[in-house]
Amino acid sequence: MVSYTTDSELERFTLDVFGSVGMPRQVAASVASVLVWADLRDVGSHGVSRLPQYIQWVQDGLMNVCPHMQAEALSGALLRLQADRAPGPLAMVDAVKRLVPMAKAEGIAAGVVSGMTHSGALGYYTCKAAGQGLACIAVNAGIPFIPYHGSRAAALGTNPISIAVPGGGNDPIVFDMASSVVALGKLMQAKKAGKPLEPGWAIDSDGAPTTDATRASMVLPLGGAKGSGLSLMIECLASLLGGSPLISDALSGTGEGRKHRQNAMLVAIDVTKFMPLDDFKAQVGRLTDVLKALPLALGTEEIFVPGERGHNSMKQRQLNGIPLPDGVVADLGALAKRQAVQPIEMQDR
Amino acid sequence: MVSYTTDSELERFTLDVFGSVGMPRQVAASVASVLVWADLRDVGSHGVSRLPQYIQWVQDGLMNVCPHMQAEALSGALLRLQADRAPGPLAMVDAVKRLVPMAKAEGIAAGVVSGMTHSGALGYYTCKAAGQGLACIAVNAGIPFIPYHGSRAAALGTNPISIAVPGGGNDPIVFDMASSVVALGKLMQAKKAGKPLEPGWAIDSDGAPTTDATRASMVLPLGGAKGSGLSLMIECLASLLGGSPLISDALSGTGEGRKHRQNAMLVAIDVTKFMPLDDFKAQVGRLTDVLKALPLALGTEEIFVPGERGHNSMKQRQLNGIPLPDGVVADLGALAKRQAVQPIEMQDR
Repeated sequence: MVSYTTDSELERFTLDVFGSVGMPRQVAASVASVLVWADLRDVGSHGVSRLPQYIQWVQDGLMNVCPHMQAEALSGALLRLQADRAPGPLAMVDAVKRLVPMAKAEGIAAGVVSGMTHSGALGYYTCKAAGQGLACIAVNAGIPFIPYHGSRAAALGTNPISIAVPGGGNDPIVFDMASSVVALGKLMQAKKAGKPLEPGWAIDSDGAPTTDATRASMVLPLGGAKGSGLSLMIECLASLLGGSPLISDALSGTGEGRKHRQNAMLVAIDVTKFMPLDDFKAQVGRLTDVLKALPLALGTEEIFVPGERGHNSMKQRQLNGIPLPDGVVADLGALAKRQAVQPIEMQDR
Repeated sequence: MVSYTTDSELERFTLDVFGSVGMPRQVAASVASVLVWADLRDVGSHGVSRLPQYIQWVQDGLMNVCPHMQAEALSGALLRLQADRAPGPLAMVDAVKRLVPMAKAEGIAAGVVSGMTHSGALGYYTCKAAGQGLACIAVNAGIPFIPYHGSRAAALGTNPISIAVPGGGNDPIVFDMASSVVALGKLMQAKKAGKPLEPGWAIDSDGAPTTDATRASMVLPLGGAKGSGLSLMIECLASLLGGSPLISDALSGTGEGRKHRQNAMLVAIDVTKFMPLDDFKAQVGRLTDVLKALPLALGTEEIFVPGERGHNSMKQRQLNGIPLPDGVVADLGALAKRQAVQPIEMQDR
């Protein structure tokens, strides 16, 4: 038996929960869109399961419900957004909104977002930009959770990179990968679901490999030096350029130390400066077609391009509802009680 | 006993070899710089060991010794360079030269290079840009060598990404990673050196895992879906935007099919639009310091930031010479004979 709900019910719940801590409805709506998007796309690790943590951040003064964000154009093609501890989705959606016209005017534009909270699924933003005819690269920096290659201490964020381009059909191709073996959210999700981790995902606090989600203290960087190098470069681009160092502060105990906050960099390129959008989409469609027609590896039933499973899940879940694991239902039930809001209406099937 | 030579001797040899097939000295000099840079930095997979292949490409009409490259500004911040099968280093150095002033004027600039041959070590170009106060991201697309996740056919390039930023000291931090578990050059190097591959690096033509370099037909994508997704997005950015599809042509047997050629995209961002360069370098230096001071993992003697080993090797090899594996010495000796040029002067130690 699995418990199902709907996207509109998850949105209603998210708005109510944030309303209970004084977040204006418009701010909460941007967070709800990003969380529910992830749940629709079967990326539960970045969905409403994060709500108890987000509310805790509000209560700890780490997430600002009424932020005063400051946007500044450093040139016609460069944007700096100081997010004032805004919910990540509010800051990121604002940055994309500002970058799209800049990129269309100049051919390319980049923005650095400093001092927001958790961005949510990074692919949401690159996908938005791709939907408007842009190729978009986004990187996202967080506080230490993975060891630096050669060290046994948590020293880098699970810093993801997302790249999206307009797709052959209606949906963009959207790639989103953590620089760790798995996203931290996957570990939290396994813990909630009471499931073991796959070997090679994580180590415990002594530095020993573990598949026990409750003992895991760090996920490992993807490919050792590769993932930890990528994470470090993302810190340089997203954090240092914006004057908001996360790793130096966390490891030396200065500034805001290990307090939760994130930074990001977005680069958007106007495809139409190179060729008509339809021509580019036709090329992406052709590439998709040749890849999907490749001979299958043993045990594979279909080849997917990045984001395709998510798009499929989204269409299916918008019609048939969104399943939530029991652990998440329990957590969100407890949250509803604490915040005195109506719990999520679920259907058992 | 190991055979050593010097960087100036490797340069001399490279110029002579290319001279023997009619490449103008200035064109050959750009190739020599990039190959010898890799050998100095202990990245032999991208050094002079590639010369026999490069000369073969010239003889097969795949590398143009007197290319007519066409550069076009699509906006103040976007560049398109059609490389006319130029040696990769010539095209890439030209692109960086053009992009630096564009990025300094506009804050950011990007360039797409289409239809060159092998770029050599991608980090060379990001490093050049970082040395001029820019943060630089480069991606490089090639013809199929690795399987797409879920397929058993070679369908994607080992497409690397390199990111460099100005460093705390004199040297930039420079990250350079293939989207495969290892670069194809490492496999070729192991084959030449008669060494086995590490488990998980490669599969043979039947799709079975192998550690035998002579049997290996494909290297695997880094982290399965992650590496193959990254490689695909690099094809979209570097190849499709420039109107030079490599994968669609190779897999459908159209256009130039599987003939060797590469494309690239470079994005350069002017750090000084965000803060004075020295302030940024101080932040990078601080980050480097905290990482290098981390507690070591078992079996590690020192923590390195990306590019640091290469910088160290370069300084040491400029003083003490460059060792070449016997297989490479033999290959280049045979090449010298074929092209009737003076062989590399070596010293045995």
